[in-house]
Amino acid sequence: MPPTLSDVRSAHKRIRPFIHRTPVLTCSAINGMVRARVFFKCENFQKVGAFKIRGATNAVQSLSDEAAARGVVTHSSGNHAAALALAAHRRGIPAYIVMPTNAPPNKREAVAGYGGRITFCEPTQAAREAACDELVRSTGATLVHPYDDDAVIAGQGTAALELLEEVPDLDAVLAPVGGGGLLSGTLIAAKGVRLDVRVIGCEPALADDAAASLREGRIVPARPPVTVADGLRTSLGSKTFPIIRELVETIALAEEGEILAALRLMLERMKVVVEPSSAVPLAVLLNRSLGLAGRRVGVIVSGGNLDVSRLFQSWGS
Amino acid sequence: MPPTLSDVRSAHKRIRPFIHRTPVLTCSAINGMVRARVFFKCENFQKVGAFKIRGATNAVQSLSDEAAARGVVTHSSGNHAAALALAAHRRGIPAYIVMPTNAPPNKREAVAGYGGRITFCEPTQAAREAACDELVRSTGATLVHPYDDDAVIAGQGTAALELLEEVPDLDAVLAPVGGGGLLSGTLIAAKGVRLDVRVIGCEPALADDAAASLREGRIVPARPPVTVADGLRTSLGSKTFPIIRELVETIALAEEGEILAALRLMLERMKVVVEPSSAVPLAVLLNRSLGLAGRRVGVIVSGGNLDVSRLFQSWGS
Repeated sequence: MPPTLSDVRSAHKRIRPFIHRTPVLTCSAINGMVRARVFFKCENFQKVGAFKIRGATNAVQSLSDEAAARGVVTHSSGNHAAALALAAHRRGIPAYIVMPTNAPPNKREAVAGYGGRITFCEPTQAAREAACDELVRSTGATLVHPYDDDAVIAGQGTAALELLEEVPDLDAVLAPVGGGGLLSGTLIAAKGVRLDVRVIGCEPALADDAAASLREGRIVPARPPVTVADGLRTSLGSKTFPIIRELVETIALAEEGEILAALRLMLERMKVVVEPSSAVPLAVLLNRSLGLAGRRVGVIVSGGNLDVSRLFQSWGS
Repeated sequence: MPPTLSDVRSAHKRIRPFIHRTPVLTCSAINGMVRARVFFKCENFQKVGAFKIRGATNAVQSLSDEAAARGVVTHSSGNHAAALALAAHRRGIPAYIVMPTNAPPNKREAVAGYGGRITFCEPTQAAREAACDELVRSTGATLVHPYDDDAVIAGQGTAALELLEEVPDLDAVLAPVGGGGLLSGTLIAAKGVRLDVRVIGCEPALADDAAASLREGRIVPARPPVTVADGLRTSLGSKTFPIIRELVETIALAEEGEILAALRLMLERMKVVVEPSSAVPLAVLLNRSLGLAGRRVGVIVSGGNLDVSRLFQSWGS
């Protein structure tokens, strides 16, 4: 049984003490360009800089004391690893994080900074899974998948729940889709609150595996990672695919140049630092026809982990 | 008579329909570095990207119908010009903006985009004032000074008023100081709400004219503009200086490298785009001893008009 609105509500009660209630921002200039009223739910301001802390915290806080004491484990080199490490730290339990030996130093430091115990492995899917299995066997820790996990999906849905609490009369909600944890949770929350809300997944055209999966009726694997929206390069999972297939209106695609232009708009006009994945819904709104003119549209801004170092290189600091 | 808390409250009622209620953000990483709890009032998300719309709107909305019909005038090449143009547009009256012929195109476009009527003049103070005087004479428009104006000062104070509504138990409030409109308004609002709140002005060491003015007991002119915090290069005015002298605890200084490091922290950790002037208070918190360890500190983040184009140049877009 997939999670329901009731699971999302329970998740929200559970995680509220551990997360930020992120603001909803609007921008007249962007409203004018999109010809709609857009409400951005800014998870870039969330702890660890992304919505991922919601699902990770819900998974960690849902464990029995006995299971929790043995810790949690995951393989990830991205935001989920840092989020799980922080969520475990807040419960005072160990987090075992499997990372490839080529993971960037800043990602390793983020995980270590939250007290995560890192196990390095060769940078292949098989090596990652073997290292995870070995950790589960030796420690008894619980595996928390980055997206294909009911507690994670319910946790991610709490962002849309808060957005709809604050702006109840939305006509549509747009969320980016990678592995589908955020989109699944958003669908369960939004369609649960009001069945007539349109929910649209947004995906880079260069990583259109979710759109292909819906078209073909099976999980189509992601192509080699090329899109600038590096958070959206993963394939759907066995739990997220059925939810998305049942509830989503469509998956809309954005080209790379459209994504970068939308990212720039968000930096320059909204004054928010977001990662490229978070600009995909705005890229869709600016370039695809979705019948949203004059409507009230919610956008889940997934995260803010953008490399801004180049800006400062040019300033010599 | 300088404005009082009651004037700030009246200003708030007057301008509320025309401005954003900006969010107050916190960041655990920054709290850890500063060893205090810092609450950032994010005026970078304000309309026109800065607190300036508060004062400009209060000035415009305070005019009688008869005076309003003749319009408003100012000389400015910065945020105040755009703010006054928008404020006038919202009341349906003309805004005459005197700009130097060398004003950057994006500033001109911002003013023109809000319907401001631009008069160009030679880039000297004398030419600006002469052009303003001529416009007042020929149109009967009311001059709205960027900071040395009671209605503007009261309007700028509404940011601190909102901050203290949201976080009532602040021990201190920090605001940047250039011409002193924001700091004066912040002092009147914060000290009016609770006399024991410490209010500290923050200034670049390279533009320390406000600190020098307090020391010497007279308005010391700003030195030639060299600080990266370009919003803080102006001198205090005859209305802002007495308010600041009477109420401020101190003016703390930040070095250029400290300002850039604080700006980078705000981009990378808080995920907000701010202009260098807005990073001066955090630079002070990180580098000066103000007896704020363990305290609750409010910071007015003045604006977000940063040139982010260089980030994108390096991405080739």
